Amino acid sequence: MKSSSLHRRVVGELVATMFLLAAIVGSGIMGERLAGGNVAVALLANSLATGGALFALIATFQPISGAHFNPVVTLVDAWEGGLPWRNTPIVILAQLVGAAFGVWLAHLMFGEPWISVSTHDRGGMAPIASEFVATFGLVAVILGCARRRPDVVPFAVSAYIVGAYWFTASTAFANPAVTIARSMTSTFAGIRPVDVAGFALVQLAGGAAAAALFRWLLSGASESTVVPAPRC
Amino acid sequence: MKSSSLHRRVVGELVATMFLLAAIVGSGIMGERLAGGNVAVALLANSLATGGALFALIATFQPISGAHFNPVVTLVDAWEGGLPWRNTPIVILAQLVGAAFGVWLAHLMFGEPWISVSTHDRGGMAPIASEFVATFGLVAVILGCARRRPDVVPFAVSAYIVGAYWFTASTAFANPAVTIARSMTSTFAGIRPVDVAGFALVQLAGGAAAAALFRWLLSGASESTVVPAPRC
Amino acid sequence: MKSSSLHRRVVGELVATMFLLAAIVGSGIMGERLAGGNVAVALLANSLATGGALFALIATFQPISGAHFNPVVTLVDAWEGGLPWRNTPIVILAQLVGAAFGVWLAHLMFGEPWISVSTHDRGGMAPIASEFVATFGLVAVILGCARRRPDVVPFAVSAYIVGAYWFTASTAFANPAVTIARSMTSTFAGIRPVDVAGFALVQLAGGAAAAALFRWLLSGASESTVVPAPRC
Amino acid sequence: MKSSSLHRRVVGELVATMFLLAAIVGSGIMGERLAGGNVAVALLANSLATGGALFALIATFQPISGAHFNPVVTLVDAWEGGLPWRNTPIVILAQLVGAAFGVWLAHLMFGEPWISVSTHDRGGMAPIASEFVATFGLVAVILGCARRRPDVVPFAVSAYIVGAYWFTASTAFANPAVTIARSMTSTFAGIRPVDVAGFALVQLAGGAAAAALFRWLLSGASESTVVPAPRC
Repeated sequence: MKSSSLHRRVVGELVATMFLLAAIVGSGIMGERLAGGNVAVALLANSLATGGALFALIATFQPISGAHFNPVVTLVDAWEGGLPWRNTPIVILAQLVGAAFGVWLAHLMFGEPWISVSTHDRGGMAPIASEFVATFGLVAVILGCARRRPDVVPFAVSAYIVGAYWFTASTAFANPAVTIARSMTSTFAGIRPVDVAGFALVQLAGGAAAAALFRWLLSGASESTVVPAPRC
Repeated sequence: MKSSSLHRRVVGELVATMFLLAAIVGSGIMGERLAGGNVAVALLANSLATGGALFALIATFQPISGAHFNPVVTLVDAWEGGLPWRNTPIVILAQLVGAAFGVWLAHLMFGEPWISVSTHDRGGMAPIASEFVATFGLVAVILGCARRRPDVVPFAVSAYIVGAYWFTASTAFANPAVTIARSMTSTFAGIRPVDVAGFALVQLAGGAAAAALFRWLLSGASESTVVPAPRC
Repeated sequence: MKSSSLHRRVVGELVATMFLLAAIVGSGIMGERLAGGNVAVALLANSLATGGALFALIATFQPISGAHFNPVVTLVDAWEGGLPWRNTPIVILAQLVGAAFGVWLAHLMFGEPWISVSTHDRGGMAPIASEFVATFGLVAVILGCARRRPDVVPFAVSAYIVGAYWFTASTAFANPAVTIARSMTSTFAGIRPVDVAGFALVQLAGGAAAAALFRWLLSGASESTVVPAPRC
Repeated sequence: MKSSSLHRRVVGELVATMFLLAAIVGSGIMGERLAGGNVAVALLANSLATGGALFALIATFQPISGAHFNPVVTLVDAWEGGLPWRNTPIVILAQLVGAAFGVWLAHLMFGEPWISVSTHDRGGMAPIASEFVATFGLVAVILGCARRRPDVVPFAVSAYIVGAYWFTASTAFANPAVTIARSMTSTFAGIRPVDVAGFALVQLAGGAAAAALFRWLLSGASESTVVPAPRC
């Protein structure tokens, strides 16, 4: 990868992941403030807003940075040969830094203290199982769509995430950078720091399992049965 | 169909139907837990989450398995010549097994008992009529879109299902594998085992009626009036 | 138009308009029953379900019948040269009959009496002005998209209708066949028979105004500035 | 630009911006009236209705006027060479006039007084920071999508706005014409006139910052890495 191209990729991932976290944390704050105690209404707002922002960010940054915003996705992409292994550390660092900036940006926009530590308990087997499933599904959707139908990726990923907010007990973090950053906010979207490592580990495991399964599932797709490459 | 291709199709249907049921049952549990007793808010979450997951699953599995997830759709596809009849039993079995796994996965993610029997009464004429209409519409949408515009199928089917959750009295199961599996959960999305057979029968009847009507409706579409085959 | 093609068009419009009304009336009943008195939650369900169903119906019936489901759209299409004038009466009749069938179908699915007369007062200047605006906008969206980007029509029309449910005081009937049929239900989506004629008249006027404006607005689009015709 | 083409562009921007404001203000009134005091439910309706209308307006007016509806977007387009600088004043004037007409249209549809002055306090650092972020993001999305994938612009912009309603403390005006017009309504969507100038200034600043960043981010996209120009 050319140096100038990598610079843009790194800056793109940082800016986009910052916006993603601002969207997740910000819409959580807004939803909780306005919902009058009905958590389902707050989570509807939080999930739909995250889905909307995620769609726009993927569509915008796909040609600039590949629109990963997620260390698991970057590692899977490297394993698939899409990104040189030697470039993965700087890309993942950009995601981690951008995610932290995004939490601060949400706090700035909503007049919250710069930093706060979450006390939101997401421990136990149910959230751990949920994060495995959520990340397995996310990587499955990306691998199933990205090569053959890159234009459908923003639709499929954002639709998946809106669904996974609700069908997992953890509200589908599915992303170690997002998980770490969300431990730095004591608002609706937060997670206790003590729960972060477990989440990150099963996210990596879920992504690896999906990558292995889909290498086999997609291996047999001969050209004649493949949907033609999209023009748009 | 080549043996290796059939293996992937069967595994694909099993995995995808598992995720579909995890999404339906899981988002029902989450919606009911958070909605504070407002069933409409719970059903909004349940229907939007199902629609989101369904979109992602169809887009992901279309080139792998045809993305049926539904014995009625598989039978209609065989009748239309898309799948050899001799392969339908194993595909339908994969859907049934995957659907049951999906219910267990949802229970695992939400800390529910492994198995529970639904007591949700969906008996009577209104749900039966609803399931005929729901499945008629689902098969109509698939037949109307699948050949000419396969890229629009994930949009059309998920949009249809979000609508049908609300415009049928049964919340539109429209799928015998889904119906059987949902009898194994005593949560929001459940159905009493005694109501399953009636649902499955009218789902088959509704699908058959739509297949017959659309064979005629689509027969006259000469090449000049057909929307060109999509490139994506 | 060939006789067999017209038969299919007429049957297609009848079946699709029936489903559209079943969706509008049925989701209104379901929304109101479950919303616990919060009319905004009921209308969220009603508008999103209508949008979902409308998307699926347009995508499915576009190549069969043109997917009008609406006498105003059929008249505008005839004025634009898309449909022979002599075929408009039978198409409009199919829409009117299908719409009535759809109300009965919703009543059947929800165990409501076969026929009931609405007492929902939608009289006064605000709803009348709203229907002019709603139908003007609907015809504008269709004319702006249908020729150049037929594949975007299901997205644009359903998105418009979801919006117009909320930004007009009448919840955007925008369709004389829908208006007449909705006078035959005393449920959430109903309209008093005495208000029907006024709605239908301003719907025609709004559609005519949009058709006139867009004939001029679109006249100057030379080939070089036109977005290329979609392939899908 | 040919005179006749500019006439259509100006009229198109005026009509579309009028509809956009009618949608924002109208759905705000409807949402607040029906939501029974739950502001989150009202804002869900307001944001989804705005997103739906915005999608339809962009898809409809893209080939007529470029679908800016926003002085910041028009200025960025001129800076990018898309619109001659000498044509920007008349286009912006059309947006301002259309936006005011749209507020009046919403008041007409909902039986509100013709003019009213908002008392909705949106002062302070949080909304100001929010408007910078909201407009930065909007211009980023437009620049990232418009050249390479114009067909995805209606999806990306409307999805972004639905998200930004929730993830900014100001509900994402992100548009000086919209901001000025919304000071003329004392309903849900209003803004005090005293807060308008600050909003407009940071909207310009946020748009300029995004334009500068994306000139660099997009500069290196060689033809080979660019997603092919869409056909639809």
